[in-house]
Amino acid sequence: MIQVTIIGSGNVARHLISAFSQSSFVEIKQVFARQTETLSHLIPSEKITNNFAQIQESDLYIISVTDQAIESVSAQIPFENKLVVHTSGTVSIDNLSSRNRKGVFYPLQTFSKDKKVNFKEIPVCLEAQNEEDYLVLESVAKSISDKPFNISSEQRKALHVAAVFSCNFVNHLYRIGSEICTENNIPFEILYPLIEETADKIKFLSPEEAQTGPAKRNDTTTINAHLNFLQDNTQKEIYKLLTKSIIDNGKKL
Amino acid sequence: MIQVTIIGSGNVARHLISAFSQSSFVEIKQVFARQTETLSHLIPSEKITNNFAQIQESDLYIISVTDQAIESVSAQIPFENKLVVHTSGTVSIDNLSSRNRKGVFYPLQTFSKDKKVNFKEIPVCLEAQNEEDYLVLESVAKSISDKPFNISSEQRKALHVAAVFSCNFVNHLYRIGSEICTENNIPFEILYPLIEETADKIKFLSPEEAQTGPAKRNDTTTINAHLNFLQDNTQKEIYKLLTKSIIDNGKKL
Repeated sequence: MIQVTIIGSGNVARHLISAFSQSSFVEIKQVFARQTETLSHLIPSEKITNNFAQIQESDLYIISVTDQAIESVSAQIPFENKLVVHTSGTVSIDNLSSRNRKGVFYPLQTFSKDKKVNFKEIPVCLEAQNEEDYLVLESVAKSISDKPFNISSEQRKALHVAAVFSCNFVNHLYRIGSEICTENNIPFEILYPLIEETADKIKFLSPEEAQTGPAKRNDTTTINAHLNFLQDNTQKEIYKLLTKSIIDNGKKL
Repeated sequence: MIQVTIIGSGNVARHLISAFSQSSFVEIKQVFARQTETLSHLIPSEKITNNFAQIQESDLYIISVTDQAIESVSAQIPFENKLVVHTSGTVSIDNLSSRNRKGVFYPLQTFSKDKKVNFKEIPVCLEAQNEEDYLVLESVAKSISDKPFNISSEQRKALHVAAVFSCNFVNHLYRIGSEICTENNIPFEILYPLIEETADKIKFLSPEEAQTGPAKRNDTTTINAHLNFLQDNTQKEIYKLLTKSIIDNGKKL
């Protein structure tokens, strides 16, 4: 068994505590939380501390705090040469204090307080400074997830940009779709099956092969009808830019 | 039982034939296909014709051909005052010949030849010129789908624009995400769970509530880092425009 100490009490920290609690490979040695009572439903209170001086020895320390706090928190761990990782998608491994061995343990998912997730399905992006530490992180990740990935800090930066396009921006397009529906007294739920199929299809076809619609067909009659229909200038601009980008991509083939 | 004749042999026609074949409420009276042999695996050959003069009387004619052909095909049905509908998302009900009673029977889904779909889950957008015809269309739709919707031609136009944003444009953003991954030696599949969760989440939260990411937080440090990272000018423009739109939406609240 490997002993893991978690520092933080946010959404990621809580989901990790829940997931590790069900693992027979990992023992949660201790959890650090400024407000110890916020975690009392998840873990016995004698394992929770709000005092850095009381942090005990452990095989692995997982810092799951805001990006801005990672550096200073990592400097307050009262040990040297221990394996210390953070769970951020954007912060470089270099931001961790050099007093300890550094690493990253980044679960790639949107965590909401009230929505249960199946951790087995969540990719965990791992990074370490040497092979031995990497194997420790990999075994810990495998105890809760079927999808460990070796991702460097440089790659993690790219991955975050890709996630902004494929998720944050996608959600904004859902919002525009939903606004157009509402304005025309159409229930947005009518689009759910199509949205679901669009998200599902790319597992079987590349997004390039899966592309359909008027831009893909270069159907200028429909494109112009849609532009005439749109009254909101930002929506019009987004329609034009994405249509042009789809058409240009087609020409590259 | 109601007798339905299908005119056409494309993806939508085939999926309709398969779905109606399993319905005890609908009898497929006949299918018109220019190449009769293309449908021989779906329906007995004596029910297939390629001659308009041989089209028999039926309760409902469903025209499932290309948008451009709907008008002329509808004019060739050798009857008067019958209920004749098309299956297009973009063509107005008015484009059908006035010799018969008009309607629309539009299943809202992307159909691919090789991918099986569960028709029960597919919304069917219905339109008719009178209540009695509407009830016929509704009962036929309910025999294969749990989701009939009353959608006018005007609404259908809006719905198509909403679908372009929520599906076609979304797929293009997946493509950009996938390109960024590939360029950085990251398997695109690492984003599947996040993509799936993003598509799933809007069934429980509005897209407005579900929005996350640097633009939502107005996190200019991350936004600028991402813009510096992006080398492709179109990707940069799309990033800027969608980020601005998310930030402006936030200000409206």
